[in-house]
Amino acid sequence: MERHVDLELSRLKEELVRMAGLAEAAIGLAVKALVSRDTEMARQVIASDDAINALEIEVDERCLRTMALYQPEAKDLRFLAMAMKINNDLERIGDQAVNIAERSCELLKEPPLKPLIDIPRMAQLAQQMLKDSLDAFVQGDPDSARAVCRRDDEVDNLDDQIFRELLTYMLQDSKAITRAINLILVSRHLERVADHATNIAENVIYLVQGKTIKHHVAGE
Amino acid sequence: MERHVDLELSRLKEELVRMAGLAEAAIGLAVKALVSRDTEMARQVIASDDAINALEIEVDERCLRTMALYQPEAKDLRFLAMAMKINNDLERIGDQAVNIAERSCELLKEPPLKPLIDIPRMAQLAQQMLKDSLDAFVQGDPDSARAVCRRDDEVDNLDDQIFRELLTYMLQDSKAITRAINLILVSRHLERVADHATNIAENVIYLVQGKTIKHHVAGE
Repeated sequence: MERHVDLELSRLKEELVRMAGLAEAAIGLAVKALVSRDTEMARQVIASDDAINALEIEVDERCLRTMALYQPEAKDLRFLAMAMKINNDLERIGDQAVNIAERSCELLKEPPLKPLIDIPRMAQLAQQMLKDSLDAFVQGDPDSARAVCRRDDEVDNLDDQIFRELLTYMLQDSKAITRAINLILVSRHLERVADHATNIAENVIYLVQGKTIKHHVAGE
Repeated sequence: MERHVDLELSRLKEELVRMAGLAEAAIGLAVKALVSRDTEMARQVIASDDAINALEIEVDERCLRTMALYQPEAKDLRFLAMAMKINNDLERIGDQAVNIAERSCELLKEPPLKPLIDIPRMAQLAQQMLKDSLDAFVQGDPDSARAVCRRDDEVDNLDDQIFRELLTYMLQDSKAITRAINLILVSRHLERVADHATNIAENVIYLVQGKTIKHHVAGE
């Protein structure tokens, strides 16, 4: 019996890693579309969300099927429950990529407001957090998961900084307003990607240590 | 054995209903604080999120414990898995209430920009969707769940309308910009509350019919 469960669990890991790869690529591509002013690329991101959504359903069904068919032991049940949570966060990261791509399509209808430096940096940070949280999941490594949680503040600070900077653009020139708001929203979406990566890392810590660190100071 | 599972499942339902009640109240209070210009009330919303967070952990632990101890049958496992998902959405609705309360605190530092009509209306719609999605869960009623999904568009339309109206305020007067952005963000947070209620309703449909309607047209 145990062999079947193990096979399902390892397939599950593979699927989640694949899904994270797609989500990470979608975020990267959505921001690249914005920076390189490529509307076609942005549309591609919006279309590619279907693959992530299909994987979400597949992962959920695999989890439920495995729970139902193999009566897994407590440790494996916890893994399956955490996999469903991580699955949910990955799907929502995919949604954020779509949101960014939609904002990008809007932004690309007008000339660029300013050279984009902080937004690509924020995207890189968020993508790296996502990648590291999945590595922590695959390795079952709570220390790297904890490092991901700590980095969330850095992204929050960048979001604040971007907000304040764009505010000054709006105050100086009312023609800048719609573009500035769309950039603020892109920044908010990236901040949410980092939040989801943090959720994933928190779930990894719970999975490995059976200890909930949610709703506590991440760096404690 | 079965009696133990049933007891756990009915406790779980109670906890989720209680949590939804807290989340709904928090959304209502956050918007009331904004409309009645009561910073103290907004702070109260921020402080009260702890209770929702504590319930989230309790619900997750009850689900995992029930899975591990009672080896529930497939139908009950599906219920437990959906309960964990609904739990997650409720906790995030609580976070949105905090976000709205934080924006309200900012907004209350300045005189009112305009009488608020659409935002309270949007809040009411989102609260009702949340309430109805939980009723659908408790009754196991896929039809009311489907009705919740259909109402999501109404909230999205209000969000767009609010956005466009506030944009005109910003274009007319640069002193309106920070307040307008904060109101746009409040509207976005309410739109996310409706999204979470829709997620809950989708999970109810899945729970009752074993059919995934996620990522399909809600009204199909």
